[in-house]
Amino acid sequence: MIHSARTSPRPVRGRRPEENPIPPLRFGVNYTPRRGWFHSWQDFDPAEAYEDLAQIAGLGLDHVRVFHLWPLLQPNRGLVRTTAVDQLARLVDLAAEVGLDVMVDGVQGHLSSFDFYPEWTRSWHHRNVFTDPDALTAQAELLRTLSHALADRPNLIGLQLGNELNNLVEHNPVTVAEVDHYLDTLLAAAREGLRPGQLATHSAYDAAWYGDDHPFTPEASARKGDVTSVHPWVFSADCARRYGPASLQVRHLAEYGTELATAYAVDVDRLVWVQETGAPEPHIPAAEAPEFARATLLNAADCTSLWGVTWWCSHDVDRSLLDFPELEYTLGLFDAAGRAKPIAHTLAATVAELRAVPAAPQPRDTALVLECTPGTRSVSGPGGAFFEAWMRLRAEGGRPAVVLAERAEDAGYLAARGITRTVCPV
Amino acid sequence: MIHSARTSPRPVRGRRPEENPIPPLRFGVNYTPRRGWFHSWQDFDPAEAYEDLAQIAGLGLDHVRVFHLWPLLQPNRGLVRTTAVDQLARLVDLAAEVGLDVMVDGVQGHLSSFDFYPEWTRSWHHRNVFTDPDALTAQAELLRTLSHALADRPNLIGLQLGNELNNLVEHNPVTVAEVDHYLDTLLAAAREGLRPGQLATHSAYDAAWYGDDHPFTPEASARKGDVTSVHPWVFSADCARRYGPASLQVRHLAEYGTELATAYAVDVDRLVWVQETGAPEPHIPAAEAPEFARATLLNAADCTSLWGVTWWCSHDVDRSLLDFPELEYTLGLFDAAGRAKPIAHTLAATVAELRAVPAAPQPRDTALVLECTPGTRSVSGPGGAFFEAWMRLRAEGGRPAVVLAERAEDAGYLAARGITRTVCPV
Repeated sequence: MIHSARTSPRPVRGRRPEENPIPPLRFGVNYTPRRGWFHSWQDFDPAEAYEDLAQIAGLGLDHVRVFHLWPLLQPNRGLVRTTAVDQLARLVDLAAEVGLDVMVDGVQGHLSSFDFYPEWTRSWHHRNVFTDPDALTAQAELLRTLSHALADRPNLIGLQLGNELNNLVEHNPVTVAEVDHYLDTLLAAAREGLRPGQLATHSAYDAAWYGDDHPFTPEASARKGDVTSVHPWVFSADCARRYGPASLQVRHLAEYGTELATAYAVDVDRLVWVQETGAPEPHIPAAEAPEFARATLLNAADCTSLWGVTWWCSHDVDRSLLDFPELEYTLGLFDAAGRAKPIAHTLAATVAELRAVPAAPQPRDTALVLECTPGTRSVSGPGGAFFEAWMRLRAEGGRPAVVLAERAEDAGYLAARGITRTVCPV
Repeated sequence: MIHSARTSPRPVRGRRPEENPIPPLRFGVNYTPRRGWFHSWQDFDPAEAYEDLAQIAGLGLDHVRVFHLWPLLQPNRGLVRTTAVDQLARLVDLAAEVGLDVMVDGVQGHLSSFDFYPEWTRSWHHRNVFTDPDALTAQAELLRTLSHALADRPNLIGLQLGNELNNLVEHNPVTVAEVDHYLDTLLAAAREGLRPGQLATHSAYDAAWYGDDHPFTPEASARKGDVTSVHPWVFSADCARRYGPASLQVRHLAEYGTELATAYAVDVDRLVWVQETGAPEPHIPAAEAPEFARATLLNAADCTSLWGVTWWCSHDVDRSLLDFPELEYTLGLFDAAGRAKPIAHTLAATVAELRAVPAAPQPRDTALVLECTPGTRSVSGPGGAFFEAWMRLRAEGGRPAVVLAERAEDAGYLAARGITRTVCPV
């Protein structure tokens, strides 16, 4: 279907609960264990995890996104390790103890420049993780197992297939149709154990939105799974370098990403999760990080389709761990010694403010028309004509939505989104 | 030096200890954990390991060779996991409890067709594990750590760099000089913590001996480290298929490999460890495996330079674990349910027999002269002219040694080895 059956304008967040069925915005953090980063799964210590999670909860955040490692979960194609699954369940329970909900990413896969593949996909056993039928079946089995093991946790938000699976494209060539089959198969498996209201989702890094001919499409991001995940990083397409760390383009990037994702959705009620955003140095100098974080949250909260924002990340990577790209060492709200950084305080204050006086976004009645093909989607990324046109409207005080050209004359669709005017980029 | 200062013929094993300083032959097994194969390190259970080791000791064997996994030992270039090192130490102690000595292989690396590389050497972080200076430094640090952690165990035989490191050549191109530097660097690191009498060794699969222009050379195998490891597998160069599973060539393969390795040594007292041999189906049909094992041990024991024989392997790989080459599932002395197979009984009986009435090999006074270059060393492998000439002499009842052509006229060297006659292959 092109749009929901509901014909009235969608409810607006920020009204009192009794008038408004839309749940409040969610604010959380991607959990990067302070001691040992994700290698800590190899020596999982519930007390250490609890300490990290309690710090996160102390900022007033409501959820974490967590990541196990594929080679530890499924070291052989025929073996999903019960111990590893139990660890994940334990982590979800520990989060519950401090009042945090949890989104679990299944197949990692890619984390902070490292690709974690089980040995049964590598070297003499090389398999394309997207297209090899046995590799697909095995990943489905892993997600099915996780969904059955975790679904009874009341604080489980849901199950995501894995973190930015499209980072694996470089070493696992794949077509659009193969990606679609992969995502459909794994989402079905992830859903098997989940309960009503729990989310099955997937995620991709920005190439899905801005990368010409990238096999993960905006359509797959915006139409598969229960919400659309976006990871609008300021280093993508050199956004911060191009426009400056305190530029309008940078501070409205998450908002823009949310509106762009909304344009690709079929269901007009589809929500968009700003699932990763962060302040990577030197793209965002440390001194400017707090204000960047505050602006990112406030501007994204101005989107009616926003599900919530999950900051990357909770804890800095300890310098004793080598080979991370430099920017990965300082992305935490807490440093490697566990001390809250200025950005943590600002983020906490902004979240508290948005909870006390929720944003009241109105439907955006003016939409910029996006005309592009799979091979020209970079127009919608930083440096692209469409991106810059949207940002110009924003700079002029407009609050533009985005519509795809193919729907720009669909009156029913536009009405359902509350769009009364469409504008083509000059 | 070309040969040892000792000018008398080397002592002969089998005489009574007071007459003979050479220690008795060692017989052991490569330990493949019954439950979960080497993935069991991720959930190390001392009770299960103890049960496996007690079964092995019950066969009358005196040692095991054990393998941890590189990505678990050193998941980040800057992190050697204390827990993993402690597990290895615990395993050595468990072996001591049942009277087994232990050789520890450090960098795995390659095991039964799977390559276990840490993520910091793969994908976006690709490093050549042989030539990248930081990768070399990290492996040295791992071996140094292991040697310091394990050296105080009285039942530690020593530390080997890793299992068949030359299996990694295919994906890490390397020259002879680079291999030599790699081995020298890591052997020095492994020796740092070891005590007098403990061995620092390395190992390679048969390409080192038979593979034309393979960068791991026979010289490196026979001259670096404290003993020469050979892994004379009957599938190498199609030996069993070429000559038949019960052929003389197959049953004398370990003996031949020992003599070939002895030829490349500089120290005439250098010992050779038949560190891996086994009865892979269908190369050796299961019904013929016991007799193959018996013949292999008896024939190898007829070499004066033999250190011992370590069978591959202790336990069958469970069929629930997928993607192993078919032959890997049935190499155990015990099946996946823990039942001793016929080959286990035969091996145990043969070991008992060799202990009760030790073999009494005499110096081999006739030597076949090996003339080959790095690019023609396949002459000394199954199917090669030299190999076949040696086997013809053996079939005629001879007990030929091997000398390199470059030393065939070195009277002192020949005398030190007890060689009185050299023969060139026809």
